[in-house]
Amino acid sequence: MCRLLAGHPNLRLAGVHANSSAGRRLGELQPHLLPFAGMEVQPSDAASLSGYDVVVLALPHGESAAIAGQLPAETLVIDCGADHRLNDPAAWARWYGGVHAGTWPYGLPELPGQREQLAGATRIAVPGCYPTSVTLAMAPALAAGLAEPDVVVVAASGTSGAGKSAKPHLLGSEVMGAVSAYGVGGVHRHTPEMIQGLGQAAGGDVRVSFTPTLVPMSRGILATCSAPLRPGVDAEAARAAYEKAYGDEPFVHLLPEGQWPTTAQVLGANTVALQVAVDADAHRLVVVAAVDNLTKGTGGAAVQCANLALGLPETSGLPLVGVAP
Amino acid sequence: MCRLLAGHPNLRLAGVHANSSAGRRLGELQPHLLPFAGMEVQPSDAASLSGYDVVVLALPHGESAAIAGQLPAETLVIDCGADHRLNDPAAWARWYGGVHAGTWPYGLPELPGQREQLAGATRIAVPGCYPTSVTLAMAPALAAGLAEPDVVVVAASGTSGAGKSAKPHLLGSEVMGAVSAYGVGGVHRHTPEMIQGLGQAAGGDVRVSFTPTLVPMSRGILATCSAPLRPGVDAEAARAAYEKAYGDEPFVHLLPEGQWPTTAQVLGANTVALQVAVDADAHRLVVVAAVDNLTKGTGGAAVQCANLALGLPETSGLPLVGVAP
Amino acid sequence: MCRLLAGHPNLRLAGVHANSSAGRRLGELQPHLLPFAGMEVQPSDAASLSGYDVVVLALPHGESAAIAGQLPAETLVIDCGADHRLNDPAAWARWYGGVHAGTWPYGLPELPGQREQLAGATRIAVPGCYPTSVTLAMAPALAAGLAEPDVVVVAASGTSGAGKSAKPHLLGSEVMGAVSAYGVGGVHRHTPEMIQGLGQAAGGDVRVSFTPTLVPMSRGILATCSAPLRPGVDAEAARAAYEKAYGDEPFVHLLPEGQWPTTAQVLGANTVALQVAVDADAHRLVVVAAVDNLTKGTGGAAVQCANLALGLPETSGLPLVGVAP
Amino acid sequence: MCRLLAGHPNLRLAGVHANSSAGRRLGELQPHLLPFAGMEVQPSDAASLSGYDVVVLALPHGESAAIAGQLPAETLVIDCGADHRLNDPAAWARWYGGVHAGTWPYGLPELPGQREQLAGATRIAVPGCYPTSVTLAMAPALAAGLAEPDVVVVAASGTSGAGKSAKPHLLGSEVMGAVSAYGVGGVHRHTPEMIQGLGQAAGGDVRVSFTPTLVPMSRGILATCSAPLRPGVDAEAARAAYEKAYGDEPFVHLLPEGQWPTTAQVLGANTVALQVAVDADAHRLVVVAAVDNLTKGTGGAAVQCANLALGLPETSGLPLVGVAP
Repeated sequence: MCRLLAGHPNLRLAGVHANSSAGRRLGELQPHLLPFAGMEVQPSDAASLSGYDVVVLALPHGESAAIAGQLPAETLVIDCGADHRLNDPAAWARWYGGVHAGTWPYGLPELPGQREQLAGATRIAVPGCYPTSVTLAMAPALAAGLAEPDVVVVAASGTSGAGKSAKPHLLGSEVMGAVSAYGVGGVHRHTPEMIQGLGQAAGGDVRVSFTPTLVPMSRGILATCSAPLRPGVDAEAARAAYEKAYGDEPFVHLLPEGQWPTTAQVLGANTVALQVAVDADAHRLVVVAAVDNLTKGTGGAAVQCANLALGLPETSGLPLVGVAP
Repeated sequence: MCRLLAGHPNLRLAGVHANSSAGRRLGELQPHLLPFAGMEVQPSDAASLSGYDVVVLALPHGESAAIAGQLPAETLVIDCGADHRLNDPAAWARWYGGVHAGTWPYGLPELPGQREQLAGATRIAVPGCYPTSVTLAMAPALAAGLAEPDVVVVAASGTSGAGKSAKPHLLGSEVMGAVSAYGVGGVHRHTPEMIQGLGQAAGGDVRVSFTPTLVPMSRGILATCSAPLRPGVDAEAARAAYEKAYGDEPFVHLLPEGQWPTTAQVLGANTVALQVAVDADAHRLVVVAAVDNLTKGTGGAAVQCANLALGLPETSGLPLVGVAP
Repeated sequence: MCRLLAGHPNLRLAGVHANSSAGRRLGELQPHLLPFAGMEVQPSDAASLSGYDVVVLALPHGESAAIAGQLPAETLVIDCGADHRLNDPAAWARWYGGVHAGTWPYGLPELPGQREQLAGATRIAVPGCYPTSVTLAMAPALAAGLAEPDVVVVAASGTSGAGKSAKPHLLGSEVMGAVSAYGVGGVHRHTPEMIQGLGQAAGGDVRVSFTPTLVPMSRGILATCSAPLRPGVDAEAARAAYEKAYGDEPFVHLLPEGQWPTTAQVLGANTVALQVAVDADAHRLVVVAAVDNLTKGTGGAAVQCANLALGLPETSGLPLVGVAP
Repeated sequence: MCRLLAGHPNLRLAGVHANSSAGRRLGELQPHLLPFAGMEVQPSDAASLSGYDVVVLALPHGESAAIAGQLPAETLVIDCGADHRLNDPAAWARWYGGVHAGTWPYGLPELPGQREQLAGATRIAVPGCYPTSVTLAMAPALAAGLAEPDVVVVAASGTSGAGKSAKPHLLGSEVMGAVSAYGVGGVHRHTPEMIQGLGQAAGGDVRVSFTPTLVPMSRGILATCSAPLRPGVDAEAARAAYEKAYGDEPFVHLLPEGQWPTTAQVLGANTVALQVAVDADAHRLVVVAAVDNLTKGTGGAAVQCANLALGLPETSGLPLVGVAP
């Protein structure tokens, strides 16, 4: 998000706050943020955070509500964490534990009716990176009745999705030249968020089997999603549903027929690249979506939501072209 | 396979044959084959191929039969191509076109009853790399009735699976930092081979939805497979079925509980690493398998089959440990 | 460059021209250029190129002059090729062959006096990617007399530096997991350009030993340069010379002491990250520079030069922050 | 080394010892060591280490001597650490601090006269990974008087060279897509070891300017070395010196003219690939060498030394072919 703000015509990075890094220069921690290298990291308590027009939180789950509650109601608070994404307190209790902190408008403007909820909002919950890709990939199919609400997702993610804490299995030596699965069998915490988003699209219960895999790249998610085809649905009908859903969207691109998404084409951009296919033999609809987990998957989505909430042009400061090859 | 033969105690690389490269030194074409660098590539017609005890073919599909037909019946001929893998001439005609050249014993000794067919055989069809991983992953589940015969596979493959011909989308600049899907919607030619192998395990018709993806590494396949769980099947039953199927296999390893496969652990080795999970919410059985597409996925499988056919120890000359980290 | 123009406030991508790709859609050739996907590639003859305010050429060497000669004198022509970089016709004849097409203002504004030559220019030669990194790395040292004019450079480049033509040794399978040397022994064509730039800084003859290596990443150059230390030069003097040279430059960043450049911090940005050290035991000055070969190394440099030539703010439309991690 | 022992005909991995990991299964820590997955890690005190024929140490520097001193004199002890590599106690004190523990025979059999010292030895110091590549690259040039003893080295290393401890800058997200320099300015601890080895070859003092860089791959070192050419030395003389030095060596390969080393060709193998060039313009001899830092750079060297010390065939159990492409 700091990278995006460096080129944003209307928003300015006015301060950076953190706990353990307070007092250090941003350039030591994030050497690529050359224009902000001398900025000193400040403490992250609520008092230190007062006085901003926009506050973006990226905290371990369970910690956003306490801070947000101490910020003025008119301050735009955007939470990149999970705390305010789920509607169902029981789902929160099962997947994260403890008491749910309440639901905020969900920052995925491309879902039907969602953009309106974000205009003028002062509290916004940015979606998880996997749910962004999966929900945008399958919502049109379920909304249009192309497929049964029984979705299988295998997603490949770059390693930045696991954050910056140093764990042995995330070392370069371990991840380069290697693909691995993790969180298999329905235990990844992004699952209930997908179920919620796709359930709204389907207008009913949805099953999601979700398997994340780690691939040797820094950024990017490729989500391969499929569901049993409803009778009579062919490739033309499928394509038409996606064209209708996303034809006017600035950030979601249904690729030309025959072209399949690659994460390279969205690297650093706030875009989603999508393609849809019908497998008549296997009786399944298959949708593949690519996003940059740190742009449209988090930091770019936060900027997009801020733009909407503040009445700026939605695309302001958001790259449309990936850094490829 | 040349790499493996350099360390094989019973087999010796006696000659290399090719069309367009005939007359060149092997060291020019494959600089890593240092001990064979001075070996001259010879023509690949049947006459030039006579006089060997074992001939291994790796040709475009449709070309193996003509050459194999001119080699003595007692010569062991191992085909790494697709020509003799499928049982059904109609499947051949649909997926490859033309007239089927006949079926050879299928070189996947870990399938029930298959090892016996390979002992003493003189014609062997090595499986495709994707079918090796998928068939070994799902056959025990279907044979034991753990899951419905309606399999969804998303497989991540290193780029060596696409061969050595120079195509723009396989350039390093395009594939590094990028994951992409291809052959989506049930159009990959390895699909009928999976259907055949899994159908034999299930004892009936099987549906397979197969989506291959290309990931930024040279070698390796990680196949994530799932199917609807049959009633009453739990994690214990699933694990027991896999332990029974592979407990005595030297090359197929069911990992300890909680550990998930990574392609790094099988790099350069003739092994398969497997894990199985039950997703009770999504009602699916999930199995993940890792293989090195150029070892257990092709060249190592060819050596394993040669060992069996010639009455050598099955593990002779075959690495059990991947080159990791 | 197309990527950068998509976000440039003053310049607009008005057309794309090529020979063999004429008639195709840009989206087929460069799928990441989503906003320009439908733009049709036009022919690249001089007649088709008329009518633009700015024309950027990226042609095989020897082909720029013929086209540029047919464009109006007042059109800004920026050549990304080598044709007009060298001052010495003999150097041209030795390294490229044939007759030199004449010298254009050299598009490296950070060299002393160079920015003034580019303001209002209508013909500009963009430097090669390696010479950009090496010249910016060593020019201050030679100009300030910190080191002898006997420079040793080993540079690591991502594979996009080799272009988009499909050659077997550039396949992903060959380059991933591999570092290799090429053009060793003083035969790389960027050498005379380095000698020229550094000779101007040194005010006399300079020797350059240049070894390029190919590393497994798409973009980026890390140039490690060194030269024999002049007597009495210490770390403080060295740092002072670089601070003086680049303290006011928007795109060249001398890193804080103790921090060394990484190509990740300049990925997609028009910046150069530099650091300098004195090795008293080996009697050498060592300078390391990182650039993105496709941004500051080519496309970004072209935009920067266009900004200067057209009287726009020099930093207009040019990212300052790399896409990291 | 465990990987290599799995396929060694004469040596057997009889036990694994460590401090913090004692009591865990090897398969948890190193999942690729499938055949040893159930082996329990034992404590690493000297008492626990008694009873082996061969003990291989890989400890932080300064800790080997205490343990080795408690092992019987007739036990073969191979130290992969730095403790016993340097001859000069003053060099030890400067670079590592404290009192030097004494010098052991240096485990680089390819140096003149060194093989004889290792036959029957019971204490051996395995060289560092960088010194192996640099010493083998430049020793013949200095011994034959091809170049001045003023060597410049820039080496690219895969990240496994930095070990398995989890540090933020070694995370996959940081190293993928990135090349960086570290230890610049003559501060890397492998420098005195290079000076020692090359000094013995030169028969006098040698200067070494050494800059290591980190590249996005797991394993491998490519060392680009150069030195000022002595008068009258041409390419033929240079090649002849290297052919003479390494013509009979099983593990060091001077590549055919025109071919340059790549780390891929030695991946997992105990080999070194070398090439030499003369740059008449820059008056320098350039030598490039590729090794696998974890095989010929450490674990393979330990096996090679054990073979020699125990009177086994020197090549026993050591792969000659890299795992490429």
